[in-house]
Amino acid sequence: MTTFAAAPSASATKPASGRIFNFSAGPGCLPDEVLQQIREDVWNIGGSGIGILEHSHRGKVFDKVLAEAFDDFRKISNLPKNYHVLFLTGGATAQNYMVPANLKPQDQTADYITTGYWAEKSLEQAKFYGTVSEIATSKDKNHSYIPAESACKYNSNAAYVHYCSNNTIYGTEWHDVVNGQNTWNQRIPQAPAGVPIVCDMSSDIYSRPVDFTKFGLVYAGAQKNLGAAGTTVVVIRDDLATKKARELPLMLQYNTFAKDESRPNTPPVGAIYICGLVFKWILKHGTANRHCLDVLQELNIRKAGHVYAAIDGSKGFFKGHAEPNARSMMNLTFRCPTPELDDKFCKDAGTAGFDGLKGHRATGGMRASMYNAMPEAGCKALAQFMAEFARKNG
Amino acid sequence: MTTFAAAPSASATKPASGRIFNFSAGPGCLPDEVLQQIREDVWNIGGSGIGILEHSHRGKVFDKVLAEAFDDFRKISNLPKNYHVLFLTGGATAQNYMVPANLKPQDQTADYITTGYWAEKSLEQAKFYGTVSEIATSKDKNHSYIPAESACKYNSNAAYVHYCSNNTIYGTEWHDVVNGQNTWNQRIPQAPAGVPIVCDMSSDIYSRPVDFTKFGLVYAGAQKNLGAAGTTVVVIRDDLATKKARELPLMLQYNTFAKDESRPNTPPVGAIYICGLVFKWILKHGTANRHCLDVLQELNIRKAGHVYAAIDGSKGFFKGHAEPNARSMMNLTFRCPTPELDDKFCKDAGTAGFDGLKGHRATGGMRASMYNAMPEAGCKALAQFMAEFARKNG
Repeated sequence: MTTFAAAPSASATKPASGRIFNFSAGPGCLPDEVLQQIREDVWNIGGSGIGILEHSHRGKVFDKVLAEAFDDFRKISNLPKNYHVLFLTGGATAQNYMVPANLKPQDQTADYITTGYWAEKSLEQAKFYGTVSEIATSKDKNHSYIPAESACKYNSNAAYVHYCSNNTIYGTEWHDVVNGQNTWNQRIPQAPAGVPIVCDMSSDIYSRPVDFTKFGLVYAGAQKNLGAAGTTVVVIRDDLATKKARELPLMLQYNTFAKDESRPNTPPVGAIYICGLVFKWILKHGTANRHCLDVLQELNIRKAGHVYAAIDGSKGFFKGHAEPNARSMMNLTFRCPTPELDDKFCKDAGTAGFDGLKGHRATGGMRASMYNAMPEAGCKALAQFMAEFARKNG
Repeated sequence: MTTFAAAPSASATKPASGRIFNFSAGPGCLPDEVLQQIREDVWNIGGSGIGILEHSHRGKVFDKVLAEAFDDFRKISNLPKNYHVLFLTGGATAQNYMVPANLKPQDQTADYITTGYWAEKSLEQAKFYGTVSEIATSKDKNHSYIPAESACKYNSNAAYVHYCSNNTIYGTEWHDVVNGQNTWNQRIPQAPAGVPIVCDMSSDIYSRPVDFTKFGLVYAGAQKNLGAAGTTVVVIRDDLATKKARELPLMLQYNTFAKDESRPNTPPVGAIYICGLVFKWILKHGTANRHCLDVLQELNIRKAGHVYAAIDGSKGFFKGHAEPNARSMMNLTFRCPTPELDDKFCKDAGTAGFDGLKGHRATGGMRASMYNAMPEAGCKALAQFMAEFARKNG
């Protein structure tokens, strides 16, 4: 195991490892120590003489990897026994049909809150399975905000309420705002009693404390905060895992995976193994007095703070896309005064050793994705680069 | 890149690398040089400063990885332009519903030839989409043979004929048998004109020459001959990629992946990357005068030959499960005179450095899986171990 590279100086952003700061929206960067462990284990895991990718998914080595991945995931969120953890495939996008297919009868509605591109895709794909309701949206302002609770017109007979807790493209996130102040804690829609909440948590899962018991089903593509592309983690309550809204092929039923430890057939062994390493890395942030997710939240607020301060301190040179109280800790979206300067920013940043900063075409400008594995040094260095860029080009 | 470990002596089966001979049925062993490349690239691929698992699936580095994977796969089989190559997820098992869902209207039959466990599962799952026909089966003799062409009662109006070219559990494979002699070349069912052939080629794809133009659709889980668990390669003819047997969610349609280079959403980046390395490794077997798959076939015949010779030369101590002309080159199934000796065999083999030899409960006994990446030295060493075991325990 290596330790993290030392924080680089402002003028030398490339750590000695030869690796650069990768602000990609996903797949995102992984912790250095996780990568070093992978390098050992693909050759020969635990002295077995066989690499992790080559072990039978029914053998003892993978049994242990899988059991620990389940256990560690549960430990992080103190997940009670009436919830299953599943490792599925097809990306979070596959959940767009799996959720309504399993949970929503054709003529029962489900409530969707559309706060971004992926939330809209979720709604669109759910229509294949009958009635759906878009009960609130932020489309009117190019998804720069999160609708207020009072704007959400829930149906009391809905099969579920679906929302996306962090909008990767637009850089907004659901936060509890108390007396006009952003607490950076998770805000959850106040669905009517008995209506389960379904959340696409792909881009902010385990970036701060989460209480899964408030949800019926949560899903997250692994390639942002949990591991590498190739598996999607689903947390599902017992009664929903066995719900049969319609007949489905076996491999499209949540229960098939819940019953058989996510391996009714050969699962994505490597992707699950990597999640397992990341779960252990998350747990290591905990101390005797503080829960690992409290520590990570504090770190993520500080990390995002460096870059938001660079935006707010630029005397109007940089403009953020998200309204302040909806600002994401994970994906920070901002623009220069002109598209030409945006291009120059990305080019100069690339030369300086920052990668993946070009924004999505839906917002233009830049996006800095700073998932759990992005070290604070990278955020500080980016903030400093931004300040210098604004000074030189303002 | 390292080169292969030197062939071990008969009494020392563990190569100097610390790695042992892994006869697992899948996930199976990967070439040493592929693993070494992975170890480099997960840290920093091509000097980009970012590991392969952390690159955006829309960025230049993955663009190149993906383009080369497609190109190299096509080169290996000289695949014509009217076929698509897709990287999907969900394992070959997901094809059990995707094939009929996309290709078979509810009231049109499809013909299934059931020569093993997975072929039976394919048939069973297809029933969800209406009429199907089991036109031949080897169930009467515990799947120890491949039905003769004359036993296959094709329906001329079938949507397709489905078969599995190699039966991992039973150790049988479809071979052309000419004048009673096994040619070890691929036998393909003689479906009526116009009826596409669909083949589950998971456990013998690219172990010998293959002409995909004889097929409408071929699928293969990557974890045996193509890479690691986490992606399924599908080869599909143009007209079938756009066939709409029924309305389906976008992510269950082949055409969604055919249109968008297998990345309508985040694909399993790592699993595709590993396939790409294995494709290059396969191509390297070619010489100026010989096609890579001819070379691999010759090697695989020789590799299997060592172990089959150990069975046949054991004076009845070992009994093969498969009938001689249906013997698989990839999965070799055999038994000792008693279940107790089977257990002893697996235990002693483990001590000697051979892993993954325990057979499936459907056949009992042993199974030696010898995919492309298993070096001939491993097969020779196993054959010698078998001879010694038979001598000591016979």
